[in-house]
Amino acid sequence: MAIGNVAIIGLGLLGGSIGLALAKHCPEIATTGFDTDPVTRDAARARNLAGTISNTSIEAVANADLVILCVPVGAMGFAAEAIRDALPKNAIVSDVGSSKQSVVDTLRAALPDHCVIPAHPVAGTEQSGPEAGFAELFEHRWCILTPSAETPQDSIDALSEFWERLGSKIEIMDAKHHDLVLAVTSHIPHLIAYTIVGTASDLEDVTRSEVIKYSAGGFRDFTRIAASDPTMWRDVFLNNKDAVLEMLGRFTEDLTALQRAIRSGDGDALHDLFTRTRAIRRSIIEQGQDDARPDFGRSDH
Amino acid sequence: MAIGNVAIIGLGLLGGSIGLALAKHCPEIATTGFDTDPVTRDAARARNLAGTISNTSIEAVANADLVILCVPVGAMGFAAEAIRDALPKNAIVSDVGSSKQSVVDTLRAALPDHCVIPAHPVAGTEQSGPEAGFAELFEHRWCILTPSAETPQDSIDALSEFWERLGSKIEIMDAKHHDLVLAVTSHIPHLIAYTIVGTASDLEDVTRSEVIKYSAGGFRDFTRIAASDPTMWRDVFLNNKDAVLEMLGRFTEDLTALQRAIRSGDGDALHDLFTRTRAIRRSIIEQGQDDARPDFGRSDH
Repeated sequence: MAIGNVAIIGLGLLGGSIGLALAKHCPEIATTGFDTDPVTRDAARARNLAGTISNTSIEAVANADLVILCVPVGAMGFAAEAIRDALPKNAIVSDVGSSKQSVVDTLRAALPDHCVIPAHPVAGTEQSGPEAGFAELFEHRWCILTPSAETPQDSIDALSEFWERLGSKIEIMDAKHHDLVLAVTSHIPHLIAYTIVGTASDLEDVTRSEVIKYSAGGFRDFTRIAASDPTMWRDVFLNNKDAVLEMLGRFTEDLTALQRAIRSGDGDALHDLFTRTRAIRRSIIEQGQDDARPDFGRSDH
Repeated sequence: MAIGNVAIIGLGLLGGSIGLALAKHCPEIATTGFDTDPVTRDAARARNLAGTISNTSIEAVANADLVILCVPVGAMGFAAEAIRDALPKNAIVSDVGSSKQSVVDTLRAALPDHCVIPAHPVAGTEQSGPEAGFAELFEHRWCILTPSAETPQDSIDALSEFWERLGSKIEIMDAKHHDLVLAVTSHIPHLIAYTIVGTASDLEDVTRSEVIKYSAGGFRDFTRIAASDPTMWRDVFLNNKDAVLEMLGRFTEDLTALQRAIRSGDGDALHDLFTRTRAIRRSIIEQGQDDARPDFGRSDH
């Protein structure tokens, strides 16, 4: 099956980047975009985030072979309801949400007669909104698809090929396992970053001005992650509660053990952990998932 | 007083960068370097990290107006003992350690007859060793000096001017307050990063290969910090125990509150925190303490 017409519902960082990446890599595919916010639609028109920007989601999906919902995971149900009656019978419905089991459940319930293949391109920046997208966002990044046992193979193949053309590598995964993996590689890191930035902001004996001035000691890295979209991340935590709480429990146990090592002056335990953690960094760089330059190359600016 | 001859004891990232920055900005200042590791001394000679690389610390400090100890904070006492008898009477002794109260106590006890002005340039990368340094490391970064009430003002002025010529901005601070501020802007961020990378490495239901593949969701940022020098960081935690445990306690309280918000589905509490944390990022960028480009500019590579 060929995808010739794509509807993008939600024109923030992810939706906008899909539109721009399609224009760059697949100019023969027609794109139609929609966002509930009229200001975002105007910005999307100005940046040509899609070939056509529609004023209603019904119009946007009318001719689609593929509909991609690029909205916070808490809004998936409403978005699916809104397009259901206008959706062509053979359209594939997918998304870009950061948690998957709740999206699987919500979209399958809302669209029982359609082919639903949830997806998660593991890519993004701390920026959000229609100005934030760029065509290269998905290059060399993994895109995880979470089809069910009943999903037709040709639809899975079509969606895989679609993401590969945008530069992604594909992995097929069970939704529940996805949620556990991403809890540790994405959700807990965000939760921790939000927490420490909040802690630092609320201190009385250290001023906010001091926190800002001396942030190059490590803290500034956390503020980048903690500048991510609040609505998106609220929904991720509410919709991946079980896996997040499970991983948070393990993190807290490990942090408590380190706290005890510091309190008791156990330098060997600290040195042992601090040595082990270097190996995983090397692998991430070797596999092209991060920049090898010191400080992410910031100093080269 | 003029600083015409600088001895750099320890030729890793910080020591090497001081030597290279001096060659760039102050070619008229003579530099002598020493490292206890002969392999590091050879590498330092090959990279010209100092004008002369001595084979003993006694030789290195013999003519120094300023001696900078660039060794892990746990090694400060040994380094001070080693140079004591060779140290010119009027030499200023300083350092670059990340905790300051323990360094103040150690150096003043070891060198009671010398002018000791501990310092902390808040700059670094995750790399270490004699290959890691570069001349621009200190530009636009703060350097915190922690003199005592008895320190002669002209010595403070001389050391301030020295760091300003390397591109730094100067702040004078009480050592104890420094340790509290840096606990939150540097030490706790490192501790958290080491912990989450360790947690992720030890999971059974998520493989290490999965952690690496999907690290672009946020985790990879933490692995950079957790690739920092193990000995340096072990010593920081052992030598800034009180402030680190104090700040860790506050962080843990805040994390527990967020955990409760997730468990009870309190989306408003999450959204509120996630919105507040954006402001501090903006200030850090406005004040030139981080790169404004999305993703630290990594995507521009």
